[in-house]
Amino acid sequence: MANFRIYADLLLPGDAARLLTEGVSPHETLFSQKPAGSALVRAEVDARFATVDVAFGQPDEAAVLASDRLRWIHISSAGYTRYDTPEFRQAAKARGLMVTTSSTVYAEPCADQVLAFMLAQSRQLPVALDTRCTHQDPRWQAFRNTCVPLKGANVLILGYGAIGRRLVELLRPYEMEIVALRRQAVSEEGVTVITAEQLPAALGKAQHVINILPASGATVDFFSAERFAAMAPGAVFYNIGRGDTVNQEALLAALRSGRLGAAWLDVTSPEPLADDHPLRREPRCHITPHVAGGQADEKGVLVRHFLANFQRFLEGAPLKDRVI
Amino acid sequence: MANFRIYADLLLPGDAARLLTEGVSPHETLFSQKPAGSALVRAEVDARFATVDVAFGQPDEAAVLASDRLRWIHISSAGYTRYDTPEFRQAAKARGLMVTTSSTVYAEPCADQVLAFMLAQSRQLPVALDTRCTHQDPRWQAFRNTCVPLKGANVLILGYGAIGRRLVELLRPYEMEIVALRRQAVSEEGVTVITAEQLPAALGKAQHVINILPASGATVDFFSAERFAAMAPGAVFYNIGRGDTVNQEALLAALRSGRLGAAWLDVTSPEPLADDHPLRREPRCHITPHVAGGQADEKGVLVRHFLANFQRFLEGAPLKDRVI
Repeated sequence: MANFRIYADLLLPGDAARLLTEGVSPHETLFSQKPAGSALVRAEVDARFATVDVAFGQPDEAAVLASDRLRWIHISSAGYTRYDTPEFRQAAKARGLMVTTSSTVYAEPCADQVLAFMLAQSRQLPVALDTRCTHQDPRWQAFRNTCVPLKGANVLILGYGAIGRRLVELLRPYEMEIVALRRQAVSEEGVTVITAEQLPAALGKAQHVINILPASGATVDFFSAERFAAMAPGAVFYNIGRGDTVNQEALLAALRSGRLGAAWLDVTSPEPLADDHPLRREPRCHITPHVAGGQADEKGVLVRHFLANFQRFLEGAPLKDRVI
Repeated sequence: MANFRIYADLLLPGDAARLLTEGVSPHETLFSQKPAGSALVRAEVDARFATVDVAFGQPDEAAVLASDRLRWIHISSAGYTRYDTPEFRQAAKARGLMVTTSSTVYAEPCADQVLAFMLAQSRQLPVALDTRCTHQDPRWQAFRNTCVPLKGANVLILGYGAIGRRLVELLRPYEMEIVALRRQAVSEEGVTVITAEQLPAALGKAQHVINILPASGATVDFFSAERFAAMAPGAVFYNIGRGDTVNQEALLAALRSGRLGAAWLDVTSPEPLADDHPLRREPRCHITPHVAGGQADEKGVLVRHFLANFQRFLEGAPLKDRVI
């Protein structure tokens, strides 16, 4: 078997780095001198990059295409916006370069984050954790009545991939009506997949609108004033995709007008939002700092997912989470 | 058909009261002059009580047993502590009095509340909603690593009835190991039911300990210093049952020593806890004000559940949620 060289440009703690080195052995691991501190940032590459067969992390897309030798890149995030251009796809296909992502790694925590948001909304947790009143207080019964069970609700998911699929599994006991917008309008069990033309009607019916859209030229400001206006009064908006898919001024206006019942955002533009950003002062806007994908031993899970794919690569088996 | 008289002693808003009156018509509804403000408080009865066939609410247990005519009482809560004594059970059985509860009404919101707590813990929502940092900040990756997915976790449920059953349905996608302690040690699909003798071993294994025990002489201070000490280090404790099943000083000590990873309490003793109660100052203790059963149109849902049972009563069919 040929001896492969793997270039890793993600920041790994010692144990995860050892796991990678030992896991690919006898194949060789080269660590970037300037690893990307975050999966969201392009890593710088060095001269050795031209000598590797496999790249794991967030490699510079121009360097990827400039390499004669590279056969496979495994992206360390679920999103792969920088590589998702017609030019990159065409160039990669022309030279047989495979591209995989870590979407399976992030499906579980990200789906959990969405359901955590949905249940925190349903049970009104932020208010409940801050409320101290007796059962005789009229506010007590009034508060209890603000809790709207999830069961049977109408849900719309935008961007239906690995995260959406896991979310649908988690939502199954709630017997919801689940509609999803995706690139390929192929339906799956328990989900009605719709096309862009059917979106306005779906927006008008959904009580929970879940944005998992990737960032791309086509999704910037996807949630515009017009789309917020098309939503059912009182709908709850969730974003765990990318911040720039939302026009934040339109979101703010939809919250202030009461059109939206609440917003739960794990992503914003920029991140973090300034302390004095008006969305931070909206009582029904709840913001977490882009942590939906977080999990214990995150880097270890990423490395094990890469290693399982590396084994498939060695065996010539189909790679998991392949996008190009 | 005989014309029945129904005594309702729960506080109903106008529309729910009408729903009840019209729902039982041509049978007669008598409303208490002093309805119970909360499902947790015994209602006072008046002289008309001796003339009714059915009682709906929280009727005084002595008045219930003193009535010659009463055939059925439908309790407006899931718990029925006051009626759950050997004396009451024996007297009720001797005279053919049926007792039903509203446990089905509360199963859905209460199970949702537990899963909301579990996911808020898993995703560290209280901290996340309060954190603003860049992706370059070392605290960002450190925080992400504190999120422990629920999937595959070991769960122990104490007090396994309608709420626990629904919770197990909600947890099914997480492929957990679920153990439950209940009065009758009969196992059900997806749950290993244990007896009191097996409890110490189960406490030592569970990562999530969910207390749904009813209040009774046998359950006061059930969660004692000894039982907290038997728990696995870092276990998370949830209480949506009754506050007095927990020795709160022992709980506080278990949180302070680090034995418990966190506590999520919807019930306390008393309710609400004083503002300066030490549990309120514990950063890993999260308290909601006994709202797990809350839901939109709660009283309407209660009345519809009673009416469905009243229909069964008229038909002589087995009553739902019957406990005596």
